[in-house]
Amino acid sequence: MPREDASVNAIMMVPLMLPDVNVALIGLGNVGSGALSILTENAEPIALKLGFRLNIRMICSRSVMSGTFPPHIAKTANWQDAVSHPDIHIVAELVGGTEVASEIIEASIRHGKSVVTANKELMALCGKEIWDRAIAAGINLAMEASVAGGIPIHAVLREGISGDRITALYGILNGTSNYILTEMERRGDSMETVLAEAQQLGYAEADPSADIDGFDARSKLAILSALAFGERITPADIYVEGIRRVSAIDFKYATQLGHTIRLIGAARQTPEGLILSVRPTLIRRSTILANVHGAYNAVWVKGHYGGDTFYYGRGAGSKPTGVAVVSDLMRVAREIRSGSPERVSPFAHPRLGEYKPVSVTLQKRPYYLRFRVDDRPGILATLAGILAAKHISLDAVLQEPSDAKHDLPFVITLEPTTEQAMREAVHEMSVLDYMREPPLAMPMEPPL
Amino acid sequence: MPREDASVNAIMMVPLMLPDVNVALIGLGNVGSGALSILTENAEPIALKLGFRLNIRMICSRSVMSGTFPPHIAKTANWQDAVSHPDIHIVAELVGGTEVASEIIEASIRHGKSVVTANKELMALCGKEIWDRAIAAGINLAMEASVAGGIPIHAVLREGISGDRITALYGILNGTSNYILTEMERRGDSMETVLAEAQQLGYAEADPSADIDGFDARSKLAILSALAFGERITPADIYVEGIRRVSAIDFKYATQLGHTIRLIGAARQTPEGLILSVRPTLIRRSTILANVHGAYNAVWVKGHYGGDTFYYGRGAGSKPTGVAVVSDLMRVAREIRSGSPERVSPFAHPRLGEYKPVSVTLQKRPYYLRFRVDDRPGILATLAGILAAKHISLDAVLQEPSDAKHDLPFVITLEPTTEQAMREAVHEMSVLDYMREPPLAMPMEPPL
Repeated sequence: MPREDASVNAIMMVPLMLPDVNVALIGLGNVGSGALSILTENAEPIALKLGFRLNIRMICSRSVMSGTFPPHIAKTANWQDAVSHPDIHIVAELVGGTEVASEIIEASIRHGKSVVTANKELMALCGKEIWDRAIAAGINLAMEASVAGGIPIHAVLREGISGDRITALYGILNGTSNYILTEMERRGDSMETVLAEAQQLGYAEADPSADIDGFDARSKLAILSALAFGERITPADIYVEGIRRVSAIDFKYATQLGHTIRLIGAARQTPEGLILSVRPTLIRRSTILANVHGAYNAVWVKGHYGGDTFYYGRGAGSKPTGVAVVSDLMRVAREIRSGSPERVSPFAHPRLGEYKPVSVTLQKRPYYLRFRVDDRPGILATLAGILAAKHISLDAVLQEPSDAKHDLPFVITLEPTTEQAMREAVHEMSVLDYMREPPLAMPMEPPL
Repeated sequence: MPREDASVNAIMMVPLMLPDVNVALIGLGNVGSGALSILTENAEPIALKLGFRLNIRMICSRSVMSGTFPPHIAKTANWQDAVSHPDIHIVAELVGGTEVASEIIEASIRHGKSVVTANKELMALCGKEIWDRAIAAGINLAMEASVAGGIPIHAVLREGISGDRITALYGILNGTSNYILTEMERRGDSMETVLAEAQQLGYAEADPSADIDGFDARSKLAILSALAFGERITPADIYVEGIRRVSAIDFKYATQLGHTIRLIGAARQTPEGLILSVRPTLIRRSTILANVHGAYNAVWVKGHYGGDTFYYGRGAGSKPTGVAVVSDLMRVAREIRSGSPERVSPFAHPRLGEYKPVSVTLQKRPYYLRFRVDDRPGILATLAGILAAKHISLDAVLQEPSDAKHDLPFVITLEPTTEQAMREAVHEMSVLDYMREPPLAMPMEPPL
């Protein structure tokens, strides 16, 4: 094995080599196998960067007993073996879900092990409690892989721009829905057609709800906005609306308006408080965010001092998410070797009360309303009357030529108004007998 | 002073508050004053994030004695006072240039102070030596502000994606030249016109050489590629060519080819070795990098495992660069409080020999050649003959309609060939008597 020999020699020559840090990987699915192969193939540069070895000491998964691994790696199907093993310094929880994962993390902390996790659901739901427990136990915790796998957005928010005061954050945080929307845009096809095809290609799950109804993006936004604003934010604080009602005609109208449509997770500090939402949104075609195609993710951050910054990369995938796990393991290993446990939770600086979440109904935005009506005279007058009664100003009316008089789509855009007023108007409009379906309302974001 | 009282109360309530870390700011120019105002205005959230106060203990500049500052901040016009003061933990070297800055950093390290610097020239020239000295002295060192002020690219490369193996890095690293190129593109104006206007508006220096001849971007690329590849890289390893010869007609031809032109700093691992250059380059209009307009900077990173990631933000400016300085101060302060000095230099993992810099003449790329000729029959045949003799395949010939037969611009694009062969061909072409000027050669980068 000449490759392994060369690698050992190189490592032996690193000056000031400290003792190994030992890792247990729990879970060998998509993310776990990615992390395992990076840790194995990339062991030499990792040791050179750290000044010590990051050693895989144990692997735990249901299928691990039948796999072949180097002899120095212990195998177990029982996660309790890993979290209680005296040689292990860091447990990487890569099983996903919330139940067993939560038990693994709690037991690891109880045994004084540091933890690296890729678990967005769990960290979105109880990140604050887990972080508090980690600090009390004097261990280290890291969760870069929980959001936007390939983008090191945690490192950016916790370290890179930690001196700034974030005022807003916008993200394309779900690769599946972004793939569907960009394909609809490119081909002019319907949601149903593109979704079915994505399912056949394996890009979308048989049950696509978590992706296209916005729940996956909502968990990620909860974690990112907690990091950005130092406030405890859970998925329940975030308004969510998926992409099921977006149709091919909406892309046509959006294009006429110089916009496109993306599922945007938005967290904005406003005079009313912190407003959080995940919803289909019109964004200008000229913004860099509109150039995020396919399954890529992106995060746009507005800082009070640093201005706009933008981060882009793969949202998922075995290797990109594996890089996040391995980079976290390296950071935590460094902290362990320097005897530096977590001291401050990124999830709660509760005295920065200006960032308390408030209802999305308080937000002021221009809106896009798309109607499908059984056409007859007087419709526009009625709709305009409803808007006027709510003191909402109409910006433009758009109607593509169409012969479908019984199912005629058209669009009204509104000058900035509150979501509350817009919703009341849409509610009144929904019950008009010529409406084929309730109007679809989407906010229009100012240039990003 | 109700605001200050509130802030003090909030800080007093932070649990586990550790003793202050004291900072000396040396230099109150553009960057120094930005850092000062962020540290002052943002003191409360910074203390909450750190769990202790980051305290400005001393300010040093030639003009400081006449300024008014809070009474707890000592003032001096003599940097020796700051680097030798027993209370100071971190010296922020923000004077720029290489001579005094180098003395300040050396003296700080000698006195056991940690150092934060924004000095790209110095870190590009002798970053390795400075880092080695810092490690030997057991202090901490940080230099986020030295490259692309508003983009936390150091945090990304050192922490965020440290588990990956970087294969290539492309950057728009000079805001002034990017502003000039994007204005030329937008307005169809000449370099001279846009540069003169940028100088009047204060966007370009009276002597614009550092910006438009590529030297500023070269220093930044030296630092970034050292971080990305763990190799000692100095400006002398990087081929540099500025934007002075790019003309309005080049944007027309580039557009015909679906491309635009940017001053790109590129560092690529190739079978021949690490190839480094800063030069005007054709990039596809559809790439996100082509959407970086005005004075913004951007960095595109290709990872072996994580794939493509992209980072964008302001390249300079008092506040964005100030955020980088303050975020560095926070990181270094955390390390000081946890007793964790620098152990591994980001500038040299010399055993990763695969990343040794080699000459740009070894690179294989498609090229764009733009000619200006005194038109006559047979020119194309001669040029094609020269290319054929070098075994270079011609891809396309482009010629805009023109009446200027005595100064006729046209373009030949080449199939991928070595820079060496291309240069030899261009050299032979340059001496032909109908050439109004030597051909302008620019590489065409594959889709980023």
